[in-house]
Amino acid sequence: MSKNVRVVVDAMGGDNAPGEIVKGALQALETQKNLTIVFVGRKKPLEAELKKYAYEAGRVETVFAEEVIEMSEPPVAAIKHKKDSSIVVGLKMLKNGEADAFVSAGSTGAVLAGGQLIVGRLGGVSRPPLAPLIPTSTGVSLLIDCGANVDARASWLVQYAKMGSIYMKHVVGIEKPRVAIVNIGAEDEKGNALVKETIPLLRACPELNFTGSIEARDIPYGRADVIVCEAFVGNVILKLFEGTCSMLMREVKKTLLGSFRSKLGAVLIKPALKKTLTNFDASQYGGAPMLGLKGLVVKTHGSSKAVEVKHSVIQCVNFSRQNINEKISRQLSAGTSAE
Amino acid sequence: MSKNVRVVVDAMGGDNAPGEIVKGALQALETQKNLTIVFVGRKKPLEAELKKYAYEAGRVETVFAEEVIEMSEPPVAAIKHKKDSSIVVGLKMLKNGEADAFVSAGSTGAVLAGGQLIVGRLGGVSRPPLAPLIPTSTGVSLLIDCGANVDARASWLVQYAKMGSIYMKHVVGIEKPRVAIVNIGAEDEKGNALVKETIPLLRACPELNFTGSIEARDIPYGRADVIVCEAFVGNVILKLFEGTCSMLMREVKKTLLGSFRSKLGAVLIKPALKKTLTNFDASQYGGAPMLGLKGLVVKTHGSSKAVEVKHSVIQCVNFSRQNINEKISRQLSAGTSAE
Repeated sequence: MSKNVRVVVDAMGGDNAPGEIVKGALQALETQKNLTIVFVGRKKPLEAELKKYAYEAGRVETVFAEEVIEMSEPPVAAIKHKKDSSIVVGLKMLKNGEADAFVSAGSTGAVLAGGQLIVGRLGGVSRPPLAPLIPTSTGVSLLIDCGANVDARASWLVQYAKMGSIYMKHVVGIEKPRVAIVNIGAEDEKGNALVKETIPLLRACPELNFTGSIEARDIPYGRADVIVCEAFVGNVILKLFEGTCSMLMREVKKTLLGSFRSKLGAVLIKPALKKTLTNFDASQYGGAPMLGLKGLVVKTHGSSKAVEVKHSVIQCVNFSRQNINEKISRQLSAGTSAE
Repeated sequence: MSKNVRVVVDAMGGDNAPGEIVKGALQALETQKNLTIVFVGRKKPLEAELKKYAYEAGRVETVFAEEVIEMSEPPVAAIKHKKDSSIVVGLKMLKNGEADAFVSAGSTGAVLAGGQLIVGRLGGVSRPPLAPLIPTSTGVSLLIDCGANVDARASWLVQYAKMGSIYMKHVVGIEKPRVAIVNIGAEDEKGNALVKETIPLLRACPELNFTGSIEARDIPYGRADVIVCEAFVGNVILKLFEGTCSMLMREVKKTLLGSFRSKLGAVLIKPALKKTLTNFDASQYGGAPMLGLKGLVVKTHGSSKAVEVKHSVIQCVNFSRQNINEKISRQLSAGTSAE
């Protein structure tokens, strides 16, 4: 029998809390055996929300936390002062071994700061990166780091490559994940100082299937499984990809409704178009795990609906059952000691 | 009467040289009075190509250069050793005042290196950036720098903002161009070290309409006219935008041809869809000017067809007639001295 997994869910985080959060987590519960959900949040709205659903009472717990960290608050200060917020209370449970994973759609900065300050890093990990799966025309790629550690060092990027490979192999099921580093040209001599320093270090790792540089135009085509980059660049990639997809689809829709002829055409192509759009909808791939912590922290999009929360919780179950953290610890401590 | 403008065109640069290059430049000639085109390239293919067209002989000149710089050559070495290449010969004409502008679809690295080494910087300019216009849902934005100077300093970025504003005002015709810096959050305290250092410097420039940070997801919606960023980030933005648009459109087309029902719909929506696609086709906006040199160097896409070359040449005419370089010199020398 697979081990029981306890996932703490921040009921107060994101634009659609607590409604979509509670709904999505309970949907995940239905699909998974040996899963317990622990909701953390303000008593009144959380209890009111839970009343709307029928679920196995023994598999759902509640922990109350009356403070809420707002999106605009400076993250480190918020983590230090709002001890009774859902993020701080939830992350402390993870730290104390009372849960295996924590999912939040709340302030990215607060979740990242809390992950480092409260949960803490695995031994040998320099900096835990945030690593979402992004949809491509051939599947999904892991973008690592997309916002946790700006102004990164080359040695951190090498660790990202290793952690990302383990994740793609054991959680997503890709046997020899192709690792590439984001660069402004295909040749090794291209790049900024950080990339030029990192490439030979990646080439020197026999455990990686390192394929060299990837130019940004090739990312949407899925030409690498693990896409390594510094956090600022990764954040730009993630948000530009999202913005370009949404803008373009809006423009196409506007165009289709512009004339009778195209309106008629739009009715005919709607089912097929919807299928394509769904392929590039990040929500079905769950949230972004923060790798290299002493517990799993998953950040889902601030605008997450139930489906994204559901997939994020399922992701936690897979991550935990695959013992990803043990695998990361083993591989990173086998390498040269990190600074 | 407007002054005569002489534009040197690299007939050997890009995937479609010399055919599309010659064709596009001659098309530009037809639309502009007081324009002379000087083609630089290998004698045989260039003369063979020119024979295909009828044009006013007095307005077209040829200069022969028998070497060609390949895309894969290390740029600085190529510029130093291939003295008889179209890029070196063309840029030398610009340097010597024999022309006002130089257009090439050849090696970006060689054009950038040649611009700096042969043409030279305007007084007061620290680093000349490459600044393409990118299509957005509301018009065009200038992305500056998209690949000329990696690992930039804050003071360079401030100069980009000033040069970009002058360009958008006088070439594109936007009265008070909104300037924003690419960042990973909307607040001033977000960002990496470079962005945090640059923001207060931009706020301190009364001549700029600085609106603060722009997140990458807002770029496709045209939320700024001048988008300031470090070259590595700018290059990633340019290429990812291009890659995402092309991938998504390919997927939509594939979807439309997937069933009889959607095939029928596709026929009906084709004209409207094509209109939308054209809006996001960078070729109609010409090439990327390298700002801050003692002459105008325009780099067009390596895959440029005639239409892009045509628009690039027209862009050179506008740039030259608006005396952009004098305006840049005046504004940059009025500021604090650059390092």
